[in-house]
Amino acid sequence: MIASPKPMSHLEATDVARRLRWVVAEATRTAPDRDRPMSLHEPELDGRETDYVADAIASTFVSSVGAYVDRFEGMLAEICGARRAVAVVNGTAALHVALIASGVETGDEVLMPALTFAATAAAARYIGAFPHFVDADPDRLSLCPRALAARLDAVADRRREGVFNRESGRRIGAIVPMHVFGHPADMAGLSAVADAWGLPVVEDAAEALGSRDGDHPVGARARLATLSFNGNKIVTTGGGGAILTDDEALGRRLKHLTTTAKLPHRWAFVHDEVGFNYRLPNLNAALGCAQLERLADFLARKRRLAMRYEEALSGVAGASLVAEPPGTQSNYWLVAVMLAPELAPHRDAILAALNDAGVGARPVWTLLHRLAPYADCPRGDLAVSEDIEARLINLPSSARYGAER
Amino acid sequence: MIASPKPMSHLEATDVARRLRWVVAEATRTAPDRDRPMSLHEPELDGRETDYVADAIASTFVSSVGAYVDRFEGMLAEICGARRAVAVVNGTAALHVALIASGVETGDEVLMPALTFAATAAAARYIGAFPHFVDADPDRLSLCPRALAARLDAVADRRREGVFNRESGRRIGAIVPMHVFGHPADMAGLSAVADAWGLPVVEDAAEALGSRDGDHPVGARARLATLSFNGNKIVTTGGGGAILTDDEALGRRLKHLTTTAKLPHRWAFVHDEVGFNYRLPNLNAALGCAQLERLADFLARKRRLAMRYEEALSGVAGASLVAEPPGTQSNYWLVAVMLAPELAPHRDAILAALNDAGVGARPVWTLLHRLAPYADCPRGDLAVSEDIEARLINLPSSARYGAER
Repeated sequence: MIASPKPMSHLEATDVARRLRWVVAEATRTAPDRDRPMSLHEPELDGRETDYVADAIASTFVSSVGAYVDRFEGMLAEICGARRAVAVVNGTAALHVALIASGVETGDEVLMPALTFAATAAAARYIGAFPHFVDADPDRLSLCPRALAARLDAVADRRREGVFNRESGRRIGAIVPMHVFGHPADMAGLSAVADAWGLPVVEDAAEALGSRDGDHPVGARARLATLSFNGNKIVTTGGGGAILTDDEALGRRLKHLTTTAKLPHRWAFVHDEVGFNYRLPNLNAALGCAQLERLADFLARKRRLAMRYEEALSGVAGASLVAEPPGTQSNYWLVAVMLAPELAPHRDAILAALNDAGVGARPVWTLLHRLAPYADCPRGDLAVSEDIEARLINLPSSARYGAER
Repeated sequence: MIASPKPMSHLEATDVARRLRWVVAEATRTAPDRDRPMSLHEPELDGRETDYVADAIASTFVSSVGAYVDRFEGMLAEICGARRAVAVVNGTAALHVALIASGVETGDEVLMPALTFAATAAAARYIGAFPHFVDADPDRLSLCPRALAARLDAVADRRREGVFNRESGRRIGAIVPMHVFGHPADMAGLSAVADAWGLPVVEDAAEALGSRDGDHPVGARARLATLSFNGNKIVTTGGGGAILTDDEALGRRLKHLTTTAKLPHRWAFVHDEVGFNYRLPNLNAALGCAQLERLADFLARKRRLAMRYEEALSGVAGASLVAEPPGTQSNYWLVAVMLAPELAPHRDAILAALNDAGVGARPVWTLLHRLAPYADCPRGDLAVSEDIEARLINLPSSARYGAER
């Protein structure tokens, strides 16, 4: 599906790239240092990051326990409206443990989009479960409730032991929507389908910290949702992630599972199940506390930047902003632009021209069913995902580019 | 095996604890702040830790790539005499990936000590492999070559497809010795057994950074060895670990597997296998670089402290230092004291008295075959391990206590 441009179209592609460079320049013209190459997304670390990290070092509590871990978890829970947040070492670890906590077992299938980062699928494979790919919503980019319902109707059987894929014979363990680029997935629609089939939902909110769906933050109503604080996210802990839950008891279990499943004791080492060493170090949590203090400002800047992109794109034929879904507020983690269908064959030429000019641009992830490790996984029709893959590009999205004029 | 003291022996236990408190006071009398409670092991962070971490923050490279990651890996490789060091998120992750790289597969068994931290066994379970416990060497504490050879002779068959446990029917995938408390395992003896059976070895050197075996550092000659930089280790990165290898090509594969198995490309996201998000963040590597600069000093202090413990213990009946094996130099990560056999029933009373008095003391790990998740795993006779478990205690071991007089 990575189409090759025809020879005659090279000029057209160059022209689109030229216009997109103008769009980037126009949208980011308040940025202080636009002369250097513009990366796709870089962190802003000019708050109290160094102070807090230095304080963690001075305390000698840099590792698996410490005051910043507790504080970071508390701040996250409050921001996300969750009962409990459990900080872990990265978003992949968060997904892995959330899937286990949702009841996914070896040999199960996990319904998920093909249009997501590879970690969503890898987390299922760590358990010995199999991704089962379902198509995207063309407006929201994320898992489509109609496609999900249609796929379940087509292949799933209700049995006493659960919901089974009658083609593979495997149990279906969970549904994992992902809030692509921060745009909230249609959780009302997806939850209705999940409830009708009695399937648990794990929200992969790696990209959506600070996004809102109606009157509540993404993750607020989730039994299980996961976040990422990798260096490319809206806030970073260096590497880090978290699991959100609305269930106190489940929160305690998540903490236990992610901290080697060791029972509390003054000295004895007793682990009552196979646990994971997924603790976020206090050093990284210190960075995260300083970052969360800046979140409201980052959100404002990124929204401003997205609006400027939208405005600049309004004068450009063949490319338009992927706007937040109605009734939601996206964190606009990555600015996404949809090229007109006739430009799809030139996507890579456009990306090359932009990157050659020092503008960090990228396509969406290669759809997961095209990757060797997931090529044999079950899937429904993915026509919408394939269309998005062929036409979507991301443009420089750092909060720094959205400063007030 | 956690024995309860008999009522009449409480006085004796109190007396031993009193003598051990004197030993701790004597061994640590150069320490600046002995009035506060003495923890078992705390990091020393008074080098360039804050400078380097602040520099990483100022560079904005706090996450999965950065100059400190490269520098940390280079320093580690040089210190350990390895061809390549791959920094990862913790020692458990290092073991997990090293086992995969050694060829261990789902359903295999992994020969390992019962006397180790739970991560050694958990790493095998993450792959769907099963720990198979073998006894310890009474002098070295680590996996015993004679017990290993005897166990293989007793249960193993050579077949065309590998070595099989004829009792369980499972293939035996690897042997994992662990260098307990920094004391080098008998790698010559263990390698001879491994070679005779054609089994790969993965050295769990989580505790042994800086230890030496004859003329070479622990890990120098390993095809696969793993390290940990948890907050309780001789050097810390907050949380972190590394895999060492003497094989360049294997080193590249380890880097690939631990960095989501993404193929290099300017923008395309192609992952050619199920990879892991096990990258050590640059923020943590920055801390690690400063720590490694101090390693020689830490090693000198910890050796001095161990010698002082040995001296103080020489005047105390019923307790003696577990000294480094002949021909080796231990990093003396944790000072280990063996109680006389008649004191075994009083181990917990002694630990309680020490901890009540503000002296961080602990027993060795609960033997893994006693833990619920590993109770059904195959095992040989573990009499030596059980004896060590009943009698060994660790005493405060921080480098800070070993300052020159």
